[in-house]
Amino acid sequence: MTDKFDVLAIGNAIVDILVTVDDDFLIRHDIPKSSMQLVDEATSDRLYSKLGHALECSGGSAANTIAGLASMGSKTAYIGKIKDDQLGQVFDHDINSLGITFTTGKDISGVSTARCLVMITPDAERTMCTYLGACVNLTEKDIDPALVQKAAVTYMEGYLWDPEQAKTAFRKAMTIAHDAGRKTSFSLSDSFCVGRYRQEFRHLAEHEIDILFANEEELLMLYDTRDIDAAIKAVQKHCDVAAITRGARGCTIVSPDEIIDINGYRVNDLVDTTGAGDLFAAGFLHGYSRGHDLATCGSMGNLIASEVITHVGARPNIDLKQYLVNNL
Amino acid sequence: MTDKFDVLAIGNAIVDILVTVDDDFLIRHDIPKSSMQLVDEATSDRLYSKLGHALECSGGSAANTIAGLASMGSKTAYIGKIKDDQLGQVFDHDINSLGITFTTGKDISGVSTARCLVMITPDAERTMCTYLGACVNLTEKDIDPALVQKAAVTYMEGYLWDPEQAKTAFRKAMTIAHDAGRKTSFSLSDSFCVGRYRQEFRHLAEHEIDILFANEEELLMLYDTRDIDAAIKAVQKHCDVAAITRGARGCTIVSPDEIIDINGYRVNDLVDTTGAGDLFAAGFLHGYSRGHDLATCGSMGNLIASEVITHVGARPNIDLKQYLVNNL
Repeated sequence: MTDKFDVLAIGNAIVDILVTVDDDFLIRHDIPKSSMQLVDEATSDRLYSKLGHALECSGGSAANTIAGLASMGSKTAYIGKIKDDQLGQVFDHDINSLGITFTTGKDISGVSTARCLVMITPDAERTMCTYLGACVNLTEKDIDPALVQKAAVTYMEGYLWDPEQAKTAFRKAMTIAHDAGRKTSFSLSDSFCVGRYRQEFRHLAEHEIDILFANEEELLMLYDTRDIDAAIKAVQKHCDVAAITRGARGCTIVSPDEIIDINGYRVNDLVDTTGAGDLFAAGFLHGYSRGHDLATCGSMGNLIASEVITHVGARPNIDLKQYLVNNL
Repeated sequence: MTDKFDVLAIGNAIVDILVTVDDDFLIRHDIPKSSMQLVDEATSDRLYSKLGHALECSGGSAANTIAGLASMGSKTAYIGKIKDDQLGQVFDHDINSLGITFTTGKDISGVSTARCLVMITPDAERTMCTYLGACVNLTEKDIDPALVQKAAVTYMEGYLWDPEQAKTAFRKAMTIAHDAGRKTSFSLSDSFCVGRYRQEFRHLAEHEIDILFANEEELLMLYDTRDIDAAIKAVQKHCDVAAITRGARGCTIVSPDEIIDINGYRVNDLVDTTGAGDLFAAGFLHGYSRGHDLATCGSMGNLIASEVITHVGARPNIDLKQYLVNNL
C-alpha cells in the first residue's frame, strides 16, 4: 500500500481564545504558569469574563502540528471532534483551508466546540485553561482504519489522554498503525499532563510509540527524575526516536545509536510561545517524512518553531514551504 | 443633567475574520480594493471557504472607536445588535471587558451575529466583505433615550445607513441628542458607502451632524468633486467640526474659524490599516471630551491611529491610557 498521507494527526479540536494578562492575574486565580489545566464550562466562562479583549484562532496541539505540516507541503489528515457550531465552523474552515483531509463526524447537539483560554504573559509564556467540550465525544468509532493505514506516521497528543473514551480511540489507532507497518508518534504535551498519566505514558513509550516528542520538563516528569541525562538515557531504551525540545537552546534528538544536540535559531522578536512545541513537531516530522537524517529533522523542527513564536497564535501565518526554502 | 458618558457609539456590531490575501485574490473575485461591500450569507460563506487560515476578533467601526475611547479612560456606552450565538458572545465579551455600558437586547433567534471578512493585502491595506446578519434588526426601539441624553457626544457610523430600520434609529438618536443639548458625531465610513447615500449624508452634514469624520476620498465623494480644497470649504459651512484623515500625512481639522493641518506620526512597522479611521476618531473624541483644543484633538487622533496599524486587528491591544501618557 502506498502512503496516501505523510502524517495523520489525532487530537483535541480546539479554538484558542488568546489574551494578554500580567503575572498577577495568574497568581490571583491560582493558575500555575505555563501549565494547561482542564476547566468546566462554568469556570471557563467565569475566567473569560474577567479577561480582556481577545483574539480567536483555531488551535489544538496536534491540529497546530498538522497545520504546520500542511503548510510545508506534507500530505496530511486529521481526526478530532467538533460540534457544528460557530467555533466549530472556524476550526473546520482553518483545517480545510490548508487542504488537510478532515472527515470526522461533527456533533449536531450536545456540548459546544472546545475552547482554550490562552493567557499570554509579558515574557511571551502561555498558560492555558481548556474546556474540552465536544472533544470528549471522540470515540474509537471516529478512528477510520483506512486513514490510519494510509498514513506513514500517526501522530497523537498526550492531551487527548484526558477524555476517557479518546484513550480507547488512541489505542485502536496505535494497533491499526502497527498492524499496517506504520509508525506511531506521540507528544507528551505538558508536564502536568504527564504527571496525571505517568505510568500509562511510560508504558506507551516502552511499547507503543516509535517517535516521541517532549520538552525537558515533560521528560523529567515521565521518568520521575531531576537528572535530564538520566531521562534521556531512559527514553533512548524505549523509543526509536525521541525529540526533546529545550527552549531557546534548541533540541536534543535521541535514537538507539546517537544523542544529538542541535542549537536553536535566534529569535529577536519573541511574542507568544503558544504552539512552539507543536510546530517543532511539524518541522521535525516534515523532514522525517522526506527521509532526512535526524539532525536535519531536528534543525527543521527548530526553524519552524522559531517562526510561530514571533507572532500571536499557534498556527503559521506565512507559507512555511517558502519559509523553508528561504531559511534552510 | 451631568454627562454620565463622554461618548455613546451606535453601530454595526460585527466580528471580524482577518485573513491575508494577495492582490490577485481581490481581482479574481472582482472586489474593489480598500472597499467595504455588503454580501449575503451565502456569498460570505463562499468567499470564506476560499480564504486561508484566519484570526477572529471583535470589530465594527463604531465599536472599534468606543473600544479605543474606553481604553483611554473615557466613559462610554454602545448600542448595536448581536445574536446570542458564539460570535455574539465574543463581541459581547470584548465590549464588556473594557467597561463599556452595553445593554442592547440580543436576538435569540433569526440570523446570526454579523461578520466581516477583512482581507489584508501585502501593502497592509484592508478590503472588507460584510454579512450584516443580526445588525439589520437594530430598530428605533433599541435606542434608549436615557443613554443618548446622558452622553456628551453620540457617535454614529455611516455603515449603519445600510440596514433600512437602523436609519430610523439614527434619526431618533440625533433628535434626542439635540433636544437634550448634546452633540452628534458621524463617520462617513467608506467612499462607496457615501456613494450609496450622498444626498442623505449631505443633508445630515448640513442639518444634523456637529462633528464629522471622513477621509479625503469620502469627503470628495460627499461633495462630488475632485478638488479637496473645495470639499473642505464646503464642509466648513456645514459642521461645527470636521476631522479629515489623510493617511500617512495626518489630518486636517476644519471648524468655522480655522483649517488646521496636523502631521501624522511616523510608523515604521505598518501591518494592517484596519481600524485606522475608527481609532483616529477615538483619539480625537477623547481629546474633545476633555476640552482640548482642536489641534490637540487631531494630534491625539493621529497618535491612536498610528498604534492600531502596527498590528493585526482593529482594536487596541495595549492600554491606550498608558500609551497616551508615554507618547503625548
